[in-house]
Amino acid sequence: MAAGDPVRVRTAVTRNDVARLAGVSTAVVSYVVNDGPRPVAEATAARVRDAIERLGYRPNTTARALAVGSTTTIGLVVPDSTNPFFAEYAWQIQRAATDLGYAVLISNTGFDPGVEERSVRDLCDRQIDGLLIAGVSGLRQIDELSRQGRRIPVVLIDEASSRRGHTTVGPDAATGAERVVAHLLHVHGHASVAMIIGDSADPATDGRERGWIGAHARAGRRLGVVERTPFSRQGGFEAGLRLLGRADRPTAVFVSSDSQAIGVLHAARELGVAVPDELAVGSFDDSEESRFCSPPLTTARQPARAMAEAAVAAVVHGGTTPEHLVFDMPLVVRRSCGCRTE
Amino acid sequence: MAAGDPVRVRTAVTRNDVARLAGVSTAVVSYVVNDGPRPVAEATAARVRDAIERLGYRPNTTARALAVGSTTTIGLVVPDSTNPFFAEYAWQIQRAATDLGYAVLISNTGFDPGVEERSVRDLCDRQIDGLLIAGVSGLRQIDELSRQGRRIPVVLIDEASSRRGHTTVGPDAATGAERVVAHLLHVHGHASVAMIIGDSADPATDGRERGWIGAHARAGRRLGVVERTPFSRQGGFEAGLRLLGRADRPTAVFVSSDSQAIGVLHAARELGVAVPDELAVGSFDDSEESRFCSPPLTTARQPARAMAEAAVAAVVHGGTTPEHLVFDMPLVVRRSCGCRTE
Repeated sequence: MAAGDPVRVRTAVTRNDVARLAGVSTAVVSYVVNDGPRPVAEATAARVRDAIERLGYRPNTTARALAVGSTTTIGLVVPDSTNPFFAEYAWQIQRAATDLGYAVLISNTGFDPGVEERSVRDLCDRQIDGLLIAGVSGLRQIDELSRQGRRIPVVLIDEASSRRGHTTVGPDAATGAERVVAHLLHVHGHASVAMIIGDSADPATDGRERGWIGAHARAGRRLGVVERTPFSRQGGFEAGLRLLGRADRPTAVFVSSDSQAIGVLHAARELGVAVPDELAVGSFDDSEESRFCSPPLTTARQPARAMAEAAVAAVVHGGTTPEHLVFDMPLVVRRSCGCRTE
Repeated sequence: MAAGDPVRVRTAVTRNDVARLAGVSTAVVSYVVNDGPRPVAEATAARVRDAIERLGYRPNTTARALAVGSTTTIGLVVPDSTNPFFAEYAWQIQRAATDLGYAVLISNTGFDPGVEERSVRDLCDRQIDGLLIAGVSGLRQIDELSRQGRRIPVVLIDEASSRRGHTTVGPDAATGAERVVAHLLHVHGHASVAMIIGDSADPATDGRERGWIGAHARAGRRLGVVERTPFSRQGGFEAGLRLLGRADRPTAVFVSSDSQAIGVLHAARELGVAVPDELAVGSFDDSEESRFCSPPLTTARQPARAMAEAAVAAVVHGGTTPEHLVFDMPLVVRRSCGCRTE
């Protein structure tokens, strides 16, 4: 138990205190703090700024939010901020938002559509200036709010393809996946490549699945087997056990996220299957983890920083025309494919 | 490019609309929404609730914040939310806050004291109801705000020991570290255990260092060598290379976080040093990554969920007496120490 004073009293320095010390009206303090709406003589403004400095006055942003209609806060809804890719993406979003003077309210949905809808509603009730969503269940909620006349700028931040009426940001997932699969087919000579893909990925729109199919089609090869499993290390681990337990065990697999690929590597170790010699692995994300696992992953890089900056700029400054902002995914070759690159 | 309407207009349904439809005054709508301060007859309240439902009215929380002096928002300052432990801790904090009706504004400092101070100031300017801080640089800012008469409930969420005047939440790091080191000394018979510890950990207060020293003292052994390095995978990798490059290479090492230990495992692989046969590794955190790396880590478990719930409860409901809330760290034995546990 520590001694000392409690840290729970109330805000003390007010606009009144500043006005009194500077010998001006509270309205003049407001004009100086908010840079308007009326002009203030420079000598007077200097006196107000001096009083603000001496008293340590900080304007109440809640009151300011009511006055100017902005909380300089944006909401962020992600399925799982402990997933290494979303952890990095969320961090980059927070950095980009800070650079523009915005704070970020973050909500994790755990891939639960109900939680996502609730999160969207709760964040919108907080008068946020905009909302970044990775997922699409929240859109129903957005549509409902919009029918009620409440509209909030929304950017979908993890979309492989455009979506009517919304600005979307995402990687060129099809090309990224196709690069990984083509590398396994052509450079390493596998007859076909299996796929482990997130069970929440929609086959109709998910670029990764299209890229995997495209690489086989272009090479004139028959598609490998598919395992669908949750987007998590544990999901990858279980799908890896299933895949490696098959009589027709594949020699190469494309995995739809680094965190699942980490699980696949773990499954291979458990079963004594050597990676890459007995199973070549290609992945998707290039989170930091992919460089430190064993073996390091050959993967398609999601440009998290560039996407984060574009998403924040779009939600803060966005115009009235929905756009689909697509980012290229370079192939990053490490050892899990069979290349002995350092 | 997608077609369709933009999603950027203004809030429409107001308290006035509800009042008009229900045939009551706007004050009565307020009493129903805020459950006071004046009572409303049940039949009237039902009419108001019905109007709210039909119009899809949602109270403006910014206005409410001014009225009731609460934004139902808490701030969270962490050094690095992409570190697997902080990612999980931050997630658990967000879940615990949501359960109590609070949203979380999160800020990453990247272990930069200047950024930490700015984050604290910016969050406090947003009229948050309380602040959770992992780190101590922000305290200077808190003290300054408090001198200015602005006081905000603060809980330090990653503290191994109590700190005068503040409620602190943390693991019993000394006992946790001692358990790991004692396991390496006694069960596996190492003569001494080296330590790789975060360079931002204060030797005077960091429980991990005390635990490492205590285990050696109790066993009557001479301390192993120490490497100080950033709290990151890369930091652990570089310290691992240095440690394993020594003429007197240690046979066992205690690493101060899982993410650093992941880097040490990577360094050992690079240098062809077998873990655990040539280097036993004990760690600290038990983040999910520790189960999926190769070999899985023997580590002391930080009870992230329990600590998160305690921290949120303390900052939201906290009384006036600072407390130090300590959580036990169980030893989790996996393979990196030499035990062949599954």
